[in-house]
Amino acid sequence: MPADYVIRPIGHVESPLVDRATTPKQGFEGAPSAWLVFDVEMSDGIRDLAVGDDIFVLTWLDRAERGMLLVHPRDDPATPETGVFSTRSQDRPNPIGLHRVRIATIDGNRFQVLDLEAFDRTPIVDVKPVIPPER
Amino acid sequence: MPADYVIRPIGHVESPLVDRATTPKQGFEGAPSAWLVFDVEMSDGIRDLAVGDDIFVLTWLDRAERGMLLVHPRDDPATPETGVFSTRSQDRPNPIGLHRVRIATIDGNRFQVLDLEAFDRTPIVDVKPVIPPER
Repeated sequence: MPADYVIRPIGHVESPLVDRATTPKQGFEGAPSAWLVFDVEMSDGIRDLAVGDDIFVLTWLDRAERGMLLVHPRDDPATPETGVFSTRSQDRPNPIGLHRVRIATIDGNRFQVLDLEAFDRTPIVDVKPVIPPER
Repeated sequence: MPADYVIRPIGHVESPLVDRATTPKQGFEGAPSAWLVFDVEMSDGIRDLAVGDDIFVLTWLDRAERGMLLVHPRDDPATPETGVFSTRSQDRPNPIGLHRVRIATIDGNRFQVLDLEAFDRTPIVDVKPVIPPER
């Protein structure tokens, strides 16, 4: 198998969240609304997304540490060290963020979503519909 | 923002599924059990995964087409052409597979999971626990 693959962003997040200390660990813990801004080249790909759709947004957490295999959950030194694949830590070998959100507003290639826990300018790499039995 | 990022597999899938024609579109549509085989370097990262855990496995669908923005859902030419981000097509700009599975057996760095719709030798790029409200 090849050693690696190249991932190319399809857009980015616009959010008031700018640093780790003030960003909720999970979207349902009070994250603000944010905008998904898709590159214009992606217009055909996003054309069938609609207000009210539940989607998974996959991001590339570009400010994460990739060398971590054991982490303290929730960045809390008091929690026991845990294998990273049993956590949602942003620090992980491939820092792909998985965010389940609902589309609130659409304005051209800009999609407002609720409760997104991602920093401003985080690259977006994929969007998928939520389907049963995930619903 | 940088133009792209490098994704490095952490393991691979062992599955009886070898081609697109015979592979279910979704895991709950009768996919067989499969093994997640993690690279030995990832041992610390997987150490806290347990039998019965519900996890998201993220794969790199290395046999997908990356240039598709409009697809016929379920590879059926009779379905209307649809923006790829409203579908789970494997053909998409960043072909990351998202699979929700349950761990059935653990044998060292080999994890048997049920209902995984991925080809044999598909690279694994991340594993995350399913957490509320996704549960």
